[in-house]
Amino acid sequence: MKFTKMQGIGNDYVYVNCFREKIDYPSETAKMVSDRHFGIGSDGLILIKPSDVADFKMEMYNSDGTQSEMCGNGIRCVGKYVYDYGLTRDTNITIETLAGIKFLELTTKDDKAVLIKVDMGNPELLPAKIPVVAEGDQVVSQPIDVDGTIYQMTCVSMGNPHAVIYMEDVKGLEIEKLGPKFEKHSRFPNRTNTEFARIIDKKTIEMRVWERGAGETLACGTGACATTVASILNGYTENEVTIHLLGGDLIIKWDQEKNKVFMTGPAEVVFDGEINLSSLA
Amino acid sequence: MKFTKMQGIGNDYVYVNCFREKIDYPSETAKMVSDRHFGIGSDGLILIKPSDVADFKMEMYNSDGTQSEMCGNGIRCVGKYVYDYGLTRDTNITIETLAGIKFLELTTKDDKAVLIKVDMGNPELLPAKIPVVAEGDQVVSQPIDVDGTIYQMTCVSMGNPHAVIYMEDVKGLEIEKLGPKFEKHSRFPNRTNTEFARIIDKKTIEMRVWERGAGETLACGTGACATTVASILNGYTENEVTIHLLGGDLIIKWDQEKNKVFMTGPAEVVFDGEINLSSLA
Repeated sequence: MKFTKMQGIGNDYVYVNCFREKIDYPSETAKMVSDRHFGIGSDGLILIKPSDVADFKMEMYNSDGTQSEMCGNGIRCVGKYVYDYGLTRDTNITIETLAGIKFLELTTKDDKAVLIKVDMGNPELLPAKIPVVAEGDQVVSQPIDVDGTIYQMTCVSMGNPHAVIYMEDVKGLEIEKLGPKFEKHSRFPNRTNTEFARIIDKKTIEMRVWERGAGETLACGTGACATTVASILNGYTENEVTIHLLGGDLIIKWDQEKNKVFMTGPAEVVFDGEINLSSLA
Repeated sequence: MKFTKMQGIGNDYVYVNCFREKIDYPSETAKMVSDRHFGIGSDGLILIKPSDVADFKMEMYNSDGTQSEMCGNGIRCVGKYVYDYGLTRDTNITIETLAGIKFLELTTKDDKAVLIKVDMGNPELLPAKIPVVAEGDQVVSQPIDVDGTIYQMTCVSMGNPHAVIYMEDVKGLEIEKLGPKFEKHSRFPNRTNTEFARIIDKKTIEMRVWERGAGETLACGTGACATTVASILNGYTENEVTIHLLGGDLIIKWDQEKNKVFMTGPAEVVFDGEINLSSLA
């Protein structure tokens, strides 16, 4: 199987062009290739396929073999792949995912896609839909008691739940201690992703993320979107913000008229390879 | 740069055939390719080069860019590489390393090397040479006080220091708590690797290893050798033993007449690839 390893601010997947390759056992293949010692090493497997309803289809598997709906960093890499490897010459691309059809806008340089903008859809603020146990229409700087310490949280869903907490010292935070306490807090019926953010200025935020079920990760696209929406709701920032994550930077814009969030960021080819999958047959 | 990712019971390196490729910045290249999100992902980089004193030369770099002397799992992969990729037709191979010239014996099947036997040299038992603070000529089942608990340890150097501790429940051990206490114990002037081993029968041992400076790893070739020597000294096993490590199995034999330890184990090609290193230029 020919493949390309790509990463978007540190979120790395194995990408396979299924216009050429046929993957018979995608779930088993994902588990095998994702292993960082015995396989290629990745956060999962993304198959690029033909679509009946969009330009391309992105079929995504986690490293444990389960299928996943969408990934903001992954879909940027799909956009770069289809352009750089000549599957399209368009810079406006539609991609079918399990979370619906997504719209991408590519910025190119020397005939390569260098920045990819993704329409991440509408933020959801209604507590019951996030879901978070709270009164009122939205949760903006509301107190939450975590083991006797009161934090001010702002809650946003980007298709998945996020709680955003502002603090002065994000770098020094013991996130592996505090993250799980938010994740499993009784006020989040479906658990929650938690962003720990520091406002640098009206256009810049530093952030670390504790992902539900995954722990701290280098980057979380929906988390960056949720943090931007939360920061605008709190009056901390303007409508377009650069977010510094451990893995790199994303530019997030909340278009409040259309109520849409746009994420712009890089995508990189790490290397091309070929692996023998005969052991899976 | 063309490369091959290989692993020996989970110890994985990026291998480069330097009969064809020229690596200008090996230390920087090692750091770059080893990164598991932004690079190829590996425990380090191993360059296969011509040698003036042996059939081949193995030049090894850790993931932090520092050079390393030798690695038992790595040298087995070098043996498989030079045979499978046609650099030699011999099954008895000499390899120059920073730890001296090593002798390999390959077992082949369908024209591929499937098992590689490595002469790992002489075990050292003298306390001052291991080094461990102790009286007498060797340390076999001698007590050591670790935070008030007394353990029986057997100490062996295979070019690096090892303390072997026997216990009934190796799987349930909280190695990340106990391992560092041995590593930094005052009786080991150069710190120590520690093996936690369970005797299954006279020919079989289960073992986990805490590596000095690295923490728990899937496999440690010198640790398996040290544990075998320790088990023979204690009268627990015969002279040839199968060791079950987290990453797979090794067969270790101590030839007491020649005072040499031989390690036999597998090596696997994971995939072939090509990466653009122009960012290092």
